[in-house]
Amino acid sequence: MRWKIIIEYLGTQYCGWQRQKEDIDTVQESIEKAIFNFCQQEITIHAAGRTDAGVHAKGQTAHFDLDYGERSINGFELAKALNAHLRYEPIRIIHAEEVDESFHARHSATDKLYTYRIINRAAGVALEKELVWHIRRPLNTDAMNDAAQILTGFHDFSTFRDTQCQAQSPEKTLDKLWIEAKPYDNWGGTEILVHAQARSFLHHQVRNMVGSLSLVGEGKWSKLDLQVALDAKDRAAGGPTAPASGLYLVQVYYDTLHKDEEDNNNNNNNESKDID
Amino acid sequence: MRWKIIIEYLGTQYCGWQRQKEDIDTVQESIEKAIFNFCQQEITIHAAGRTDAGVHAKGQTAHFDLDYGERSINGFELAKALNAHLRYEPIRIIHAEEVDESFHARHSATDKLYTYRIINRAAGVALEKELVWHIRRPLNTDAMNDAAQILTGFHDFSTFRDTQCQAQSPEKTLDKLWIEAKPYDNWGGTEILVHAQARSFLHHQVRNMVGSLSLVGEGKWSKLDLQVALDAKDRAAGGPTAPASGLYLVQVYYDTLHKDEEDNNNNNNNESKDID
Repeated sequence: MRWKIIIEYLGTQYCGWQRQKEDIDTVQESIEKAIFNFCQQEITIHAAGRTDAGVHAKGQTAHFDLDYGERSINGFELAKALNAHLRYEPIRIIHAEEVDESFHARHSATDKLYTYRIINRAAGVALEKELVWHIRRPLNTDAMNDAAQILTGFHDFSTFRDTQCQAQSPEKTLDKLWIEAKPYDNWGGTEILVHAQARSFLHHQVRNMVGSLSLVGEGKWSKLDLQVALDAKDRAAGGPTAPASGLYLVQVYYDTLHKDEEDNNNNNNNESKDID
Repeated sequence: MRWKIIIEYLGTQYCGWQRQKEDIDTVQESIEKAIFNFCQQEITIHAAGRTDAGVHAKGQTAHFDLDYGERSINGFELAKALNAHLRYEPIRIIHAEEVDESFHARHSATDKLYTYRIINRAAGVALEKELVWHIRRPLNTDAMNDAAQILTGFHDFSTFRDTQCQAQSPEKTLDKLWIEAKPYDNWGGTEILVHAQARSFLHHQVRNMVGSLSLVGEGKWSKLDLQVALDAKDRAAGGPTAPASGLYLVQVYYDTLHKDEEDNNNNNNNESKDID
């Protein structure tokens, strides 16, 4: 029986999603331990995106196969049981459902939505220090949103790709990239959300795009400067990497036709090393 | 020279606003220490509301008098300097301005807005554990909002008053009490905001009202039950006290005519022991 689970986590204390050596805390290992404590089965779970150290999730999606013998359990009960075992960790299963065996959390995904949160004001952040990126200098969000459109579509994203990225190709299609601005406090502070949607991303791609957009927002870069950076296809031409604390994997999208996605994916092996 | 400051803080690690003994962490003492480290003056600051242990603020307001000698400093510089001294604490001065000497953060306040945050879903909260109250059972927000209107206006709020409340009278006017509901995640979770606005509140009044409203939301109490509880004028007739983690002092309102407020206030000595 294959289960699809939606996971919310605070990434701060974890070395990312992916299980590593025994003494390194990862989100994957914590959930696999919870599954083991629940049913004494050593199971590997597969996530849509391997988030980096310190990156958060509002809607990470994963799947795993569980042979639960004669007993039956529904999604609500499974989530409740796993959350009981996860109670001392900032990880919660917010939804669980039985899916067809053709479903694969990563291969079946048609799109992923990441959101990056910036708090823009002179004073630092007291309430959400590990949940945002604080930028002191005023950002022009109209200029950021205008420049962001340069990055949408099919490009060689080498400028925004971490030097350790394992993807075979730096070419990706960025479906959408847009800026949302709203008041954060009643004294002029602004919360800026950078939303990025694509089938898959290169390692650090969102954080590197946000870092460059912050230069546009500060007025240090023009829209043309961003174009020149993209065209350079060189990480050295890009802006800084925005900190992990502001990044959230918000949602993973799936079609109902999982089989089709899987067939498509066989022609896209460069996705298999995808680490966002 | 009198300064008005707006303060954001994470209340989790503090025993409330008000300075106590030397070895107890309070927000007031932390800010007074920052002022001392900035200008070597031992100054007492006066806040609009003395928030309890664990309660947060998005817009606490305080005033203090600072003799800064011949040198001049503006509000932006003062906030920046104090924030530098507060950098290891979850407290930030988000605004500072020079005010007339007739201004008093508590006496001049015409209204205070508190907001209580509830996350309502089966799964617990991973990202904001110390920033909300998690309620597992589904709440009917329409029923809560409808019942809340019973509590607005002038009442004896003894039912919602902590037994240790020092206010001389349990009679207060609650200007507004309303519920706002919005999606918290993409899988049915809801964020419920309870907003309460009044010139002043009794000790634990907002948390006690929220606790009773949660019973209405769960269907354990009808609107009539809430009315009966209010009429009992007895804390034992009220619902539970909602945890401190969900409560925020959001904003303190002032008229421009501070003198008038101060004169009014002299007829309201029962306000002087007000602890929200």
